[in-house]
Amino acid sequence: MKLLEERIKADGKVLGKDILKVDSFLTHQVDFSLMKAIGQRLADVYADKNITKVVTIEASGIAPALYTAEALNVPMVFAKKAKNLTMNDELLTTEVFSFTKQLTSTVSISKKFISENDNILIIDDFLANGQAALGLLELMAQAKAEVAGIGIVIEKSFQTGRQLLQDKGISLTSLARIASFEDGAVQFASADDSSLDQQ
Amino acid sequence: MKLLEERIKADGKVLGKDILKVDSFLTHQVDFSLMKAIGQRLADVYADKNITKVVTIEASGIAPALYTAEALNVPMVFAKKAKNLTMNDELLTTEVFSFTKQLTSTVSISKKFISENDNILIIDDFLANGQAALGLLELMAQAKAEVAGIGIVIEKSFQTGRQLLQDKGISLTSLARIASFEDGAVQFASADDSSLDQQ
Repeated sequence: MKLLEERIKADGKVLGKDILKVDSFLTHQVDFSLMKAIGQRLADVYADKNITKVVTIEASGIAPALYTAEALNVPMVFAKKAKNLTMNDELLTTEVFSFTKQLTSTVSISKKFISENDNILIIDDFLANGQAALGLLELMAQAKAEVAGIGIVIEKSFQTGRQLLQDKGISLTSLARIASFEDGAVQFASADDSSLDQQ
Repeated sequence: MKLLEERIKADGKVLGKDILKVDSFLTHQVDFSLMKAIGQRLADVYADKNITKVVTIEASGIAPALYTAEALNVPMVFAKKAKNLTMNDELLTTEVFSFTKQLTSTVSISKKFISENDNILIIDDFLANGQAALGLLELMAQAKAEVAGIGIVIEKSFQTGRQLLQDKGISLTSLARIASFEDGAVQFASADDSSLDQQ
């Protein structure tokens, strides 16, 4: 997605050899207009797949997932990283390790929101080592829901996540794919939705 | 906001004597159309206040805050409850105790996103004991930013939050105000935006 790649070039900051900081428009401060365009694009890709719900994981996935849900006219459900007093229902639950935060979280979704009748589009802000996406796939498998695909805002293609998801035969749509960071500059691989940029 | 009160009556679940569970449309599964209406309403209330940014706290505040930001055409910033490797900037930071989760979190926002030139609208999903809102006010004070008001989706009026915020002279707009839970049924007090329901 050209608009997103241009924004990453303009406002993304490369930290060290493998971290891209996009906190000015995605992960901390949020540009609603870019998020809306991202949601519309992901909805366009999966428009004919009869998606029943969009699923993401708190917190940075919520904004792109919400606009994707709006464009598909379905509810959005966000997985939680910690239990609280009001989550007394039966839960779908799994463990996810975050390399960025260097900790393992228990990720859960109330069973009542995902069923075997659902056809799910998973959305997340980043795909790096794929642990969050695999965790969400595991929750959907526990609920016996279909997963029509995974939509990612920014993929770090030099990490293992893409391969892990492709090995499972899942449809993957990454709107920006980072091939490498060379001398602090972002080099992009061809995005999965690049054919839609010309329309 | 009548639409919200009706949804709470239809889908909210009262747990024990002071917990309202609204996980089917706000705190876990999210109804984008209701969130959009909520965002529009809060934007209407503060339309003439020259808001420069909407600030909330992860995770359930993000959806209503995002649509409020869209309606006001300003960026949204969400405060974080834990540091991660990419947050290496100078931080505005404070401690917030959550009665629901029974734990104290360090809440932070990067200094670069809030300045003394900002006029902030704070948005949160719930107002109960007011600790999250007071924490966000503290962060805004550290940045010397103005706070034009606080917009709340659901206020539990029988808890201390409202009084604590009013004692500070802050403009408070709660779209649904719960006076009490009687025998598991929600009793509403007059919402701060009730005059707009007739328009």
